[in-house]
Amino acid sequence: MKRLAILGSTGSIGAQALDVVERTPGSFQVVALAAHTNVEKMAEQVRRFRPRFVALADPAAARRLRDLLGNPAPEILEGDDGVVALARLPDVDFVLAAISGSAGLRSTAAAIEARKPVGLANKESLVLAGELLISRAKANGVDILPVDSEHSAIFQSLAGHNRTDVRRLLLTASGGPLRTASACELDDVTPARALRHPNWSMGHKVTIDSATLMNKGLEVIEARWLFNIEPHQIDIVVHPESVLHSMVEYVDGSVVAQLGVSDMRGPISYAMAYPERLRLDLPALDLSKLGRLTFEPPDPLRFPAFTLAYRALEAGGTAPAMLSGADEAAVAAFLEGRLGFRGIAQVCEQVLEAHSPEPLRSVEQALEASEEGRRLAEQLVAR
Amino acid sequence: MKRLAILGSTGSIGAQALDVVERTPGSFQVVALAAHTNVEKMAEQVRRFRPRFVALADPAAARRLRDLLGNPAPEILEGDDGVVALARLPDVDFVLAAISGSAGLRSTAAAIEARKPVGLANKESLVLAGELLISRAKANGVDILPVDSEHSAIFQSLAGHNRTDVRRLLLTASGGPLRTASACELDDVTPARALRHPNWSMGHKVTIDSATLMNKGLEVIEARWLFNIEPHQIDIVVHPESVLHSMVEYVDGSVVAQLGVSDMRGPISYAMAYPERLRLDLPALDLSKLGRLTFEPPDPLRFPAFTLAYRALEAGGTAPAMLSGADEAAVAAFLEGRLGFRGIAQVCEQVLEAHSPEPLRSVEQALEASEEGRRLAEQLVAR
Repeated sequence: MKRLAILGSTGSIGAQALDVVERTPGSFQVVALAAHTNVEKMAEQVRRFRPRFVALADPAAARRLRDLLGNPAPEILEGDDGVVALARLPDVDFVLAAISGSAGLRSTAAAIEARKPVGLANKESLVLAGELLISRAKANGVDILPVDSEHSAIFQSLAGHNRTDVRRLLLTASGGPLRTASACELDDVTPARALRHPNWSMGHKVTIDSATLMNKGLEVIEARWLFNIEPHQIDIVVHPESVLHSMVEYVDGSVVAQLGVSDMRGPISYAMAYPERLRLDLPALDLSKLGRLTFEPPDPLRFPAFTLAYRALEAGGTAPAMLSGADEAAVAAFLEGRLGFRGIAQVCEQVLEAHSPEPLRSVEQALEASEEGRRLAEQLVAR
Repeated sequence: MKRLAILGSTGSIGAQALDVVERTPGSFQVVALAAHTNVEKMAEQVRRFRPRFVALADPAAARRLRDLLGNPAPEILEGDDGVVALARLPDVDFVLAAISGSAGLRSTAAAIEARKPVGLANKESLVLAGELLISRAKANGVDILPVDSEHSAIFQSLAGHNRTDVRRLLLTASGGPLRTASACELDDVTPARALRHPNWSMGHKVTIDSATLMNKGLEVIEARWLFNIEPHQIDIVVHPESVLHSMVEYVDGSVVAQLGVSDMRGPISYAMAYPERLRLDLPALDLSKLGRLTFEPPDPLRFPAFTLAYRALEAGGTAPAMLSGADEAAVAAFLEGRLGFRGIAQVCEQVLEAHSPEPLRSVEQALEASEEGRRLAEQLVAR
């Protein structure tokens, strides 16, 4: 039985991970659950999975959870430090890092320092501090297993092949809910429309990032560190059906790809069970029934956000963290009606241009750079 | 430098293998070349590649080659025994078994007995005697590397994954030149039309087999032995673009696939260089440019031939060899205008029904069964 800490258990990835646990009795034991503020959902998860440790980042929420659960209850920690403590528990064999946003970075770093294999669903960990975390994971001999469907696909397509034979990674992008919108239409896109993702059910931030293609740009940054590959060797292909999850092209022209239904429980379970595969009772992929898979190049004119990721990688150091922070602020402003859809990429670009990146030396510095990106973006939005 | 024996060097696969050798200087040395009767092409290959040994299965052709080459010439062997001798040469590190038809079986078996890794392009070796050859290869610790694009794709999609996690193999089929023909049209198909393959440039026999889908059936039989998998775990998906070369579905629903341009030099070079990959200067796959990949189920009503392969596997023993022989005769009769297109599958089915399979004990017995299948089919055609 693999003993799990699921950080971000009340979010979309965390809840699906718990569904995987329920579907595969005998495979996992849930030792620790962490979330931000969702007391009701956490209380329900505690009753179902009986973890020994719980953490809520919001101290008031932690107090409410204690009241709600009464006795006997798991040990309930609070604050960011409480979440980080769960990533280091001696009784944990695997940490699922599924906290969204930059809030997930400290606990990911803590898990790596505690030599725990990490299932990484928190994009920001690698976007903000990929260079640092990967070198620490390497030094500690820790596996970082991607939970993003794209990076899981690349991981599965690299297995058993020689890394020096890789020519390119091809990240597929659904193109998001606005793929077919004209440039003019994009000027007037409402949050409600941008949130209607055709294939994946995800949180708001990532769904908007999917609409701008910033999501794919951030995934380029993740892939750069996760697979130790040069940015110019990472390409993006728009594939609206989200069936072919990503690909690796080798030097002989052969392409290995991973495909599947659009169900995050696939990549989640792959990371959790690695190097095993779980017999999940998910619907099988039926290509004959689907009929066709389509592909097109990404359009940098309508969706320039993905190109900013390459620029941030080129600038190096703290630039990707700045970009990530700027995007968080810009997306929030868009969702609140304070910024137009196309303004998201414009604000991010201006933040990148205004910023002189510094070499990255610590997780704290990465978080500060992200915070600075957020501040700069908010100033730009306010104007 | 890997030292090669290329058996069937004047055929389509053999010639492309030699093209791979020329494109990758320093990787291979051509020690031996064997062919059937094509003296002129063999003479040209001898001048270009300077092998130390040559064999021509046709003794008269061997004599003409000696006359044509004069001195100094390589050692020129003749007859089937001459071809078999090249498969056993001590100076050979790798045998490319690219002789077409049942004529290739003895030399494949000889290479396995001589403990040479085999690049297997000869379908009949595994169709006629897969059970025997694979167990001999296993006993001798010999790698059999598939050269068919489909089996190469499966081989590449299995690399690095656990064999016990395999749920299904999915062989893709182009559907051949008659995929969209109606049942009525199939009654009147001419050899010329059936030979117009949309994607692959191949020999006549395999192109007609592609039109009937018998080719895919024979590949099911090959896959059954090559990957030690039950026939019910092998499915066929029609994929007209021939870009996705085949797939493996794992128990968690994840599908790993290999894709590439329709160029046999990909799988040929993969087998020849294994476990390395060669930096071939082939055009890269550009999915955005292709735009789409389509998929449909195979139609057993218009193209029943593939279903016969499953029946032959179920019958076991000599049944697949009988089917293969019957198909060789039926395709020849079709190409000569003595049998209609739909007659090919009908004749094969009748041969299978008339035959009581025997347990397979030797390569010679497999060849006899194939010969009997051919005889029975010819009798049926003659009626």
